[in-house]
Amino acid sequence: MKFEKKDFIYEGKAKKLYSTDKGDVILVEFKDDLTAFNAEKKGSFEGKGKTNLQISQLIFSRLIKEGIETHLIEQISENEVLVQNLEIIPLEVVIRNKAAGSICKRLGFDKGFEFKKPMFEVFYKKDELSDPLLTWENVEALELCNSEEHLKLKEKALKVNEVLRTLFKEAGIDLVDFKIEFGRNKEGDILLADEISPDSCRLWDLESGETLDKDRFRQDMGKVGESYQIVLEKLKKVVES
Amino acid sequence: MKFEKKDFIYEGKAKKLYSTDKGDVILVEFKDDLTAFNAEKKGSFEGKGKTNLQISQLIFSRLIKEGIETHLIEQISENEVLVQNLEIIPLEVVIRNKAAGSICKRLGFDKGFEFKKPMFEVFYKKDELSDPLLTWENVEALELCNSEEHLKLKEKALKVNEVLRTLFKEAGIDLVDFKIEFGRNKEGDILLADEISPDSCRLWDLESGETLDKDRFRQDMGKVGESYQIVLEKLKKVVES
Repeated sequence: MKFEKKDFIYEGKAKKLYSTDKGDVILVEFKDDLTAFNAEKKGSFEGKGKTNLQISQLIFSRLIKEGIETHLIEQISENEVLVQNLEIIPLEVVIRNKAAGSICKRLGFDKGFEFKKPMFEVFYKKDELSDPLLTWENVEALELCNSEEHLKLKEKALKVNEVLRTLFKEAGIDLVDFKIEFGRNKEGDILLADEISPDSCRLWDLESGETLDKDRFRQDMGKVGESYQIVLEKLKKVVES
Repeated sequence: MKFEKKDFIYEGKAKKLYSTDKGDVILVEFKDDLTAFNAEKKGSFEGKGKTNLQISQLIFSRLIKEGIETHLIEQISENEVLVQNLEIIPLEVVIRNKAAGSICKRLGFDKGFEFKKPMFEVFYKKDELSDPLLTWENVEALELCNSEEHLKLKEKALKVNEVLRTLFKEAGIDLVDFKIEFGRNKEGDILLADEISPDSCRLWDLESGETLDKDRFRQDMGKVGESYQIVLEKLKKVVES
């Protein structure tokens, strides 16, 4: 796609957004920054943006192949991608296959407890409230989406989980949980947005059980960059085979 | 009902339970104790158990009259009541007509914000987890009730709200929110359990806006006992008229 990069729009925790000469197209730059605990903990490693973008691209390609509509248009450099300008629904949609992280503390599940079926949760994207958990009735009162959209979010998120679990399993990785975001296009369709990477997934090596995701950063386990690189290499092998 | 008080079973924050010679009947003693913030704050006032039981009885009578099934059998003394021995569902079922308390901090609503429709929420009755909010998917994963029961809880709680809003309005009181509990009888029917009192409701004087509930204790506003007494007198007037 021919385009011209225009104005800086917004800087998030791990990305910068720019407008283009096409009103419905946004340029996303993946940064090398890492944050955790509502940005109370900050870090970075060289090449992180590039690695995450490569991982996210491999994942989105598989999702698109499986019929899931996304905001993705095309990658234009090592750390930049063009996406559709969606109206982002301010919800972090989480699917959990096993218990890890906040849900263990919140509901008393042991780390690694496998849910009978994948658990769907949504959190309010609102830094000043520290992204609280929302029930459907909360979503309704906050008027963040309607009930039809809510059902679609759940259905789409569970479909993404099915595709990703298979992909990661092929790569020798256990997909424990992940966070995704959705947006509406002008027609009101709901498309998968944002990125999917070790920043937004919990990924455990299927054989060793080793943590290969942002928990390494959250918990000061070291080898953050190396682990992201392992995820990339494992996914590449699957795609190339 | 003829019965014999038998063994002490359990002491809760505001009540003591005893078995009776009838296996399916429990004796509940209303204590003078008050607690807040997961029992981190403790207090009491003389006659509180007696006042709360009177208020709860007036409320339950109206609910029963309106066709809502409850655990209540009969009052046997100033601070004791006989109830059916139910299997309590470990959920605090909350209905909010207006925003007050935790939801303001959690979701950013202004105190007094009126929801377009009454908001249903459930919290896990689990002191060691500080009674966390639960989504339906959380309830399902914790296997606390099935989806049919969950729908019934919501339907029954909203019906209780309708009846109580009318009753309190007649008494010149604004029912802001309340917490109720439910249990299953041997047939698997879901019955309203526990109590309904200024301990478990937010009640604002319709004219003056004055707080007439446990928030007076939580927030050290004083005149706790006097306010509970005002609620009782106002309800009595309605019932006697």
